[in-house]
Amino acid sequence: MEVSTESVCERPHAAGYRLPPPRWILLAWCVALPARPASAQVLPSWNDGPAKRAVVGFVGKVTTAGSPDFVPPPERIAVFDNDGTLWSEQPIYFQLAFAFDRVKALAPHHPEWRTTQPYEAVLEGDTVALAGSGEKGLLELVMATHTSMTTDEFAKLVTDWLATARHPRFKRPYTNLVYQPMLELLAYLRANGFKTYIVSGGGIEFMRPWVEKVYGIPPEQVVGSSGVTRFEQGADSTPVLVKDPKVDFIDDGPGKPVGINRFIGRRPILAFGNSDGDQQMLEWTAAGKGARFVGIVHHTDAAREWAYDRQSHIGRLDKALDEAIGKHWTVVDMKTDWRVVYPFER
Amino acid sequence: MEVSTESVCERPHAAGYRLPPPRWILLAWCVALPARPASAQVLPSWNDGPAKRAVVGFVGKVTTAGSPDFVPPPERIAVFDNDGTLWSEQPIYFQLAFAFDRVKALAPHHPEWRTTQPYEAVLEGDTVALAGSGEKGLLELVMATHTSMTTDEFAKLVTDWLATARHPRFKRPYTNLVYQPMLELLAYLRANGFKTYIVSGGGIEFMRPWVEKVYGIPPEQVVGSSGVTRFEQGADSTPVLVKDPKVDFIDDGPGKPVGINRFIGRRPILAFGNSDGDQQMLEWTAAGKGARFVGIVHHTDAAREWAYDRQSHIGRLDKALDEAIGKHWTVVDMKTDWRVVYPFER
Repeated sequence: MEVSTESVCERPHAAGYRLPPPRWILLAWCVALPARPASAQVLPSWNDGPAKRAVVGFVGKVTTAGSPDFVPPPERIAVFDNDGTLWSEQPIYFQLAFAFDRVKALAPHHPEWRTTQPYEAVLEGDTVALAGSGEKGLLELVMATHTSMTTDEFAKLVTDWLATARHPRFKRPYTNLVYQPMLELLAYLRANGFKTYIVSGGGIEFMRPWVEKVYGIPPEQVVGSSGVTRFEQGADSTPVLVKDPKVDFIDDGPGKPVGINRFIGRRPILAFGNSDGDQQMLEWTAAGKGARFVGIVHHTDAAREWAYDRQSHIGRLDKALDEAIGKHWTVVDMKTDWRVVYPFER
Repeated sequence: MEVSTESVCERPHAAGYRLPPPRWILLAWCVALPARPASAQVLPSWNDGPAKRAVVGFVGKVTTAGSPDFVPPPERIAVFDNDGTLWSEQPIYFQLAFAFDRVKALAPHHPEWRTTQPYEAVLEGDTVALAGSGEKGLLELVMATHTSMTTDEFAKLVTDWLATARHPRFKRPYTNLVYQPMLELLAYLRANGFKTYIVSGGGIEFMRPWVEKVYGIPPEQVVGSSGVTRFEQGADSTPVLVKDPKVDFIDDGPGKPVGINRFIGRRPILAFGNSDGDQQMLEWTAAGKGARFVGIVHHTDAAREWAYDRQSHIGRLDKALDEAIGKHWTVVDMKTDWRVVYPFER
């Protein structure tokens, strides 16, 4: 068995290199440069294309001491949208699937829901009536299913639901529908001294119970939408935090840079999103001084996942796509850039 | 020169041990136990008393694998109040000193302030009139000096102020008035796998520019009070975050557990405060399952710092002191437990 010199000493951002150079040059490289994983070994579920080369090249330059683009580890902040960027979001945001299942579970205690919208629509599977209830209707459903309980009680509901619920198309737990290439990207960034954050329009309390196990992202590195929470003395004067039916913060669109500033207090040097709701987060990241990486997951694969962008009701990618093209951000074409989509395909 | 066996192999929670045991016992200890810094070496600015023994004992048991009290590193969350717990807060909260200095700096652009309270009181040093303006007056001063600018502009004002302002009693930069024993405690906890957080009633944007350098706590591990921040396109369509004159969140009293839950999403296993404003944070920490450490800095040293508790307008410690005594929390007596108070005394 021959050990490839390339795999021992080639630096990630030399990925495009193809012709075998003379041995003495390789030797000089090995002496001059620290050993790094070869390009073929990092991000194995990414095809060797412009997207992979862009991200590997970026990580190489910001982590190389002495490089003009070097960024000290504490400032290596990477932020990721969740729905449509780290896991799927079709046919509906998975958090809404949770809310609908909660409506069904709670319905026996709320006979009035049988004849009241938007509950009736959920109970009868009437998607037209549900769509007609609009954002206001969805918010009401979220409030009715996510609040008036303690934070611990809510976390348990989420954990129990994820253990039993199955996605309608793939017949698998929702947490199986995470993107294998993005799991590898998160791990690759952390191995290079980055701190990885989720910055999602989804509910912060909905994500925290499972993201550490699934993404390796601890609860304290999750930024999301939230309701008002209240401290009170519960039974036996044990202090509890109660989730009130009132919106506190919507971490979407222009709210994302606000959330990043509030929770992290540093500007990211890398950001990944997939929809117009991520546009301001991407702009905020791009506008920082020094090297920046801005990426968009473009859903182009109807066979393995879904194909949608400008016309989609969920995860619409229109203005942000125009900006990405105009500013040469990295647009990941799911169909051509990803060798596999989900972990279970491997 | 003799190397002390104790310093090589004694565990921190064996701190009370005094009589020299036979050599073979020491040897067996060295083989059986991982090397740890000796008690005499950890927390050198703490006198060897009940407070130091309590904290060292706690850290020993939660970090010893196989101990019934063992806590995995990701769950080792430690939270600290700032004003009066990590640095001094007399004769006024240092952030208010900043606000007053800003009023003086801005006064030439606001001739009306010469005859308008609470500005007039600040400009004339009229503490009675200032006290008369109450919390409402102080909030107005904070709004007038902390908002209607970008987050970057505000951070620069704070940094510039700390570089030049001097504390009226000690004639030193405010950041010199941090507690040496608490700096050592923060470092000791981090060396034992803890993640250290500030949870302060003070402004989050006021603390973030300097806490990393002074405490070793990065900006993303600061929880504090905040105003509403707004994303907008500034000059040259560069995106900026603008601080609006509107309170968003008060991280004090019952707000502290809410802030901890929002920003960290895990319950701390160690909490330190110094006033009634920390009481709910301490209760929330104490009420978790498993080993917990709850500490209070009691200001008892008028000579080296200040002595105040139940009657103080700033940093009042009354109900929380009663609860600490009743529940056997660790009350640090600044006068007897701390060998030095400030770093410059060493």
